[in-house]
Amino acid sequence: MKGLWLENQKLRLRGDLPVPEPPLHEALVKVVRAGICSTDLELVKGYYSYTGVPGHEFVGVVERGPGELVGQRVVGEINAACGACAPCRSGRRTHCANRTVLGIVGRDGAFAEYLTLPVENLHPVPAQVSTDAATFTEPLAAALEIQEQVRVGPDDRVLVVGDGKLGQLVGQTLRLTGCDLLVAGRHPDKLEHLSRRGVRTGVGGEVEVEVGGFDLAVECTGNVEGFAQARRGLRPRGTLVLKSTYAGRLSVDASALVVDEITVIGSRCGPFAPALRLLAAGEVEVRPLISARYPLEEGPEGFDKAAEKEVLKVLLDIGDE
Amino acid sequence: MKGLWLENQKLRLRGDLPVPEPPLHEALVKVVRAGICSTDLELVKGYYSYTGVPGHEFVGVVERGPGELVGQRVVGEINAACGACAPCRSGRRTHCANRTVLGIVGRDGAFAEYLTLPVENLHPVPAQVSTDAATFTEPLAAALEIQEQVRVGPDDRVLVVGDGKLGQLVGQTLRLTGCDLLVAGRHPDKLEHLSRRGVRTGVGGEVEVEVGGFDLAVECTGNVEGFAQARRGLRPRGTLVLKSTYAGRLSVDASALVVDEITVIGSRCGPFAPALRLLAAGEVEVRPLISARYPLEEGPEGFDKAAEKEVLKVLLDIGDE
Repeated sequence: MKGLWLENQKLRLRGDLPVPEPPLHEALVKVVRAGICSTDLELVKGYYSYTGVPGHEFVGVVERGPGELVGQRVVGEINAACGACAPCRSGRRTHCANRTVLGIVGRDGAFAEYLTLPVENLHPVPAQVSTDAATFTEPLAAALEIQEQVRVGPDDRVLVVGDGKLGQLVGQTLRLTGCDLLVAGRHPDKLEHLSRRGVRTGVGGEVEVEVGGFDLAVECTGNVEGFAQARRGLRPRGTLVLKSTYAGRLSVDASALVVDEITVIGSRCGPFAPALRLLAAGEVEVRPLISARYPLEEGPEGFDKAAEKEVLKVLLDIGDE
Repeated sequence: MKGLWLENQKLRLRGDLPVPEPPLHEALVKVVRAGICSTDLELVKGYYSYTGVPGHEFVGVVERGPGELVGQRVVGEINAACGACAPCRSGRRTHCANRTVLGIVGRDGAFAEYLTLPVENLHPVPAQVSTDAATFTEPLAAALEIQEQVRVGPDDRVLVVGDGKLGQLVGQTLRLTGCDLLVAGRHPDKLEHLSRRGVRTGVGGEVEVEVGGFDLAVECTGNVEGFAQARRGLRPRGTLVLKSTYAGRLSVDASALVVDEITVIGSRCGPFAPALRLLAAGEVEVRPLISARYPLEEGPEGFDKAAEKEVLKVLLDIGDE
């Protein structure tokens, strides 16, 4: 089969990949569409060591698996858990000590014609959700993880720092809580998507991010300036959610965290079912976030495009439904 | 009156300080006993800029104030709040934007014959609590702040890193939750105080701090090694409480916090009433923590003693009850 192959920080199209054979309890999924995520770009930069097919945001059709799933459009949770380790037995399967992660850790991903995943990871896509929209299920679930971890009330003043792919989804989901929301970014055209949905936005230095004026700040940039802006915005006893990974180590004024009794929470993968519900209800709009689309064969060009500053989501068209 | 005076990182005894005149709503307190805290040592090192009388752990007798308090033994909360700013109006008075802090920020402290504090900050000391024991009310309240911020259940595996003054009180209070507790330290003689009360302890490299084996870790050392040990001990989605301030900035692997979805919480001043209740009930033993006592006149020597590695609490005898 065809697929993108990452090795030694080089991404290339291969036509000689074997169609994977699903192990016990896994399904064979024919990939229809996939999205390029910032993590994929970081894999290519070598921030994480990975050799294989990248890609973890996808929609596919089950080709082999349980009867009720065969022929269904599905999305899939990316962490494949062992079910036996302490985190698994405590219900924290996304933190399985022995996990593989689709297209990220020890498991070939979605930028190929076929993939396999445990059957328990698959979620059928409701008919009213388009394949393009369903491709956003995984990052939308990651945005919703915030509300799994932190109570966000309608009275809360919330700052989202970052107008990229993740900031867009975080802004849209937090807006639904009724909270007093500000999304701060650097790109007026990106922020425009949010302000059209009634979200208050502000650009760079122009935005008067009130120092200490927010109960909750969500850092979606993965850079030190974004962290600093989120931290500055927090009131004493406020909560700072880290949604992005950082290249290298972060230097933190830990004494100020103690004096102000700040809570910092790392946040990663989230729940798929509510993400699909919100997409089905049309409460989250993802179409404006699609900047470009490429066939699988032009995947490396798609990666180049996704790395451009003004670009949001790049989709890869991989197979027919 | 006599008092210790800190100026330009020099601590000296002065005999020419005026007895303070209590402003409206404040009481004049004759200081009986006071304790030297790590923060006091850091003030002398110049980590914080402060000129005046240091000292914030004390027991005194009210000399002028509301009738029902005059003649009473009291302890006092150290943050004097304005009552009008946003944090005060939200009930976060220890985070008052305009606060002064006894012996730390803009308010002369307890290492002198007299101090003043707002009447609302004072708590009468129950008869069954000795003056020595009551001097520990403030740091004991700080230890209890952890349980104001984080639910600690009997089923939780909890690691306390540090066997100093704060680690001793944190270990004793967390022990009362029934949690599965380990206090890791570097000083067998200090850990002995805890193991005599049934707390499991471990020394330095000897202690097999199970990597990823704890739900909650409390960092009580204020140094980078302590932070690293606490972080290593945490399971995914675990909570790291920072109880100590750090000289300089802390370098953190923020991506690992995101991937493991760790919560980091800064923790400072806590509630006095439960601290006094536990002291009155004899549930926290502080006597073994008193390493030495000095008269006020030998306060600078007391500071030198308090800075020694093997020493826990140094008390200053300041006045009669």
